[in-house]
Amino acid sequence: MTQATNVEIAREEANDRAVERMVASQPVLIDIQPAGQAVPGFKPNTILTSGAPLSWGEYEGGQRRAILGAVVFEGLAKSLDEAESRVSSGEIELGACHDFGCVGSLTGVYSASMPVLVVEDRTHGNRSFCTVYEGPARERLTYGIYNEQVHANLEYVRDTIGPLLGRAVRHLGGVELRPLMRRALNMGDELHTRNTAATVLFTRELVPALLELARESVDESQKLFDFLYRSEVFFLHLSMAASKATADAAHGIEGSSIVTAMAVSCREFAIRVSGLGKEWFRGPIPQMQGKVFDGFTLEDVGQIGGESMITETTGLGGLAQAAAFPLQAYNGGTSNQMVENTLKMYEITTREHPEFSIPYLAFRGTPLGIDVSKVVAKGITPIIDAGLAHKDGGQIGAGILRAPVEPFKAAWEALTR
Amino acid sequence: MTQATNVEIAREEANDRAVERMVASQPVLIDIQPAGQAVPGFKPNTILTSGAPLSWGEYEGGQRRAILGAVVFEGLAKSLDEAESRVSSGEIELGACHDFGCVGSLTGVYSASMPVLVVEDRTHGNRSFCTVYEGPARERLTYGIYNEQVHANLEYVRDTIGPLLGRAVRHLGGVELRPLMRRALNMGDELHTRNTAATVLFTRELVPALLELARESVDESQKLFDFLYRSEVFFLHLSMAASKATADAAHGIEGSSIVTAMAVSCREFAIRVSGLGKEWFRGPIPQMQGKVFDGFTLEDVGQIGGESMITETTGLGGLAQAAAFPLQAYNGGTSNQMVENTLKMYEITTREHPEFSIPYLAFRGTPLGIDVSKVVAKGITPIIDAGLAHKDGGQIGAGILRAPVEPFKAAWEALTR
Repeated sequence: MTQATNVEIAREEANDRAVERMVASQPVLIDIQPAGQAVPGFKPNTILTSGAPLSWGEYEGGQRRAILGAVVFEGLAKSLDEAESRVSSGEIELGACHDFGCVGSLTGVYSASMPVLVVEDRTHGNRSFCTVYEGPARERLTYGIYNEQVHANLEYVRDTIGPLLGRAVRHLGGVELRPLMRRALNMGDELHTRNTAATVLFTRELVPALLELARESVDESQKLFDFLYRSEVFFLHLSMAASKATADAAHGIEGSSIVTAMAVSCREFAIRVSGLGKEWFRGPIPQMQGKVFDGFTLEDVGQIGGESMITETTGLGGLAQAAAFPLQAYNGGTSNQMVENTLKMYEITTREHPEFSIPYLAFRGTPLGIDVSKVVAKGITPIIDAGLAHKDGGQIGAGILRAPVEPFKAAWEALTR
Repeated sequence: MTQATNVEIAREEANDRAVERMVASQPVLIDIQPAGQAVPGFKPNTILTSGAPLSWGEYEGGQRRAILGAVVFEGLAKSLDEAESRVSSGEIELGACHDFGCVGSLTGVYSASMPVLVVEDRTHGNRSFCTVYEGPARERLTYGIYNEQVHANLEYVRDTIGPLLGRAVRHLGGVELRPLMRRALNMGDELHTRNTAATVLFTRELVPALLELARESVDESQKLFDFLYRSEVFFLHLSMAASKATADAAHGIEGSSIVTAMAVSCREFAIRVSGLGKEWFRGPIPQMQGKVFDGFTLEDVGQIGGESMITETTGLGGLAQAAAFPLQAYNGGTSNQMVENTLKMYEITTREHPEFSIPYLAFRGTPLGIDVSKVVAKGITPIIDAGLAHKDGGQIGAGILRAPVEPFKAAWEALTR
């Protein structure tokens, strides 16, 4: 009994330390660079994808197509068939985003020339990365589609938007993300599915740099502005990179039962835990409820991977639904359900964020630090906001995922073994 | 009985026509010009101020000081004493903002050289005007203070910000305000006391013009951007001008009991009604509840006039509180009270706005068209969001005003006479 209590106290102390590091993190966008340059260990033949890693044969559907598309986009193969054989043979090295400090949006594919947002946690010095949003087209590599138009959009991001954004950000000496996120949470965003306010606020931060770039070329500044103007979800990838930096800062605290990553592949949901190193604890694909665009049904929804739920790992997205009533129109649900969802999440988290707040709840802090022990004890799993993909690729809606309890149980066993 | 019913039916038809014109209005910011050029009937010696007009001797406190300050600012007198004698003698022509298509923020003073936002209702062709926001300084002429710093800020707006903004707006061929307002209502603004999202969205609309202006001078573009960046309330004056254009479109419908203006002076609250011409129906200063900045008490609050409640006249501000939970921090109150306030307002209004919506209420339209007959029948008066001024000038807080019922009763008598 006394021993159990001591163990509990030690775990709580470890969790407090972990979550304090989340609170203290200061994610700053410092640059935009090709993945092959920015990401440690990224080789010319590396392709990353979302989720706890699978063997090549297990990747299917949109996620498999996106991996092959990235190989072709990178010029590592001339066709999808050739890409297939190069991946099978091991000439292409397939990796899991999280092992490289990266987070993947849906299929989450990275290749060496793709520009990534470089986010540094100024407090702890760690860096995280996320690809640049592809633009508002319904067909995107992120959503498991690779065709001429997708290729052209990726080229535009690689050759035009990435370099321009990099110049703008370097001119500003970096952009602090937390102040923008804090404000956006008070403007209807939960910073996973809804990033409208954050994108507009980020665009405004860039204006002095756009004006500076205009000294050389007004047209180039206008191009970057147009892209941001059209891409209301642009900030999602910044929210992801910032959340990854924040979660990574809390990783590796001995004895801590705080979740530091959640991710899905086309086959599995998986989590990592602060005190359990690099091991993934795996379980089935989450239950999904949501709203599909006209012309589709929930039967059309397919699993293609996704790691944007790193935002939930740091108390945003589904955990902060009560900050984002405008999401009802897109996600389905009601205001009352959104409030109840957030209130539930306080039961499985460790702390209320001292800076991120929810106006409707009298500025109560967002629920921060998912604790495996609480998830298992209460049988409540994290609620995750998510875009919904068609089986054959492309976005067809948005909704809510409920994480399965199995990975939390498995992690709990590993912690208490 | 039958006759009474016919009268009621006729009034309802008139009200539907009036409110339909509010719905159909399309306010567009078309230019920024000096009041003396833009506002019909504005003479070099005209000074406008807020509220149903009073005789000169009745203006007191901050409102009186602001009028005299405007006379000096305009160069019509060298000192406040000289200004006093020129106003007393009638050399200065004092007018009421609403009689000139203008709306005044608090003291609401206009002089001929002050730049005004020119807003045209593209549907009905009428124009409205509002001065440009003075900037975020606590001491402003709007708030009843005139000193060297206020003078310098007014000069900066007149000589730098007004002309630059005019060039930017003309370059864009005008800026449609309704789309920005619609979005801002889904981003935590109620477009009276809170205009944060609208200001950021408006700034973003200007960026292409800022880039164009940068071809000539990056510094000038930067100046305009800096001003907008520092002035989170900037859009309030656009919301006011847009609301005035919308309310004016609904004015003059015979038999209509829809309120088309609400205003306060330092002594009175007053309304105008669509079917009752230019007559003001007057009553006492509204009851006030609110939250003052540190170091002040509610005893310090004084009446200095104000017409920003034109936004409530078109269903925004206090009527749309449930869209703006972030206001709690500033205004006081709770989320539940804000929701209740908005729900109450549906009881005295005519229609739910088909475009302006409240996310928390499942995107229910904002309560539009205050009906004098309902106000009198139910004894519920409009709730108005407002900045609070110190007796001696300067903003010291924000809160809620409850309109007195007397003017509504008087208008109702005039309608049914």
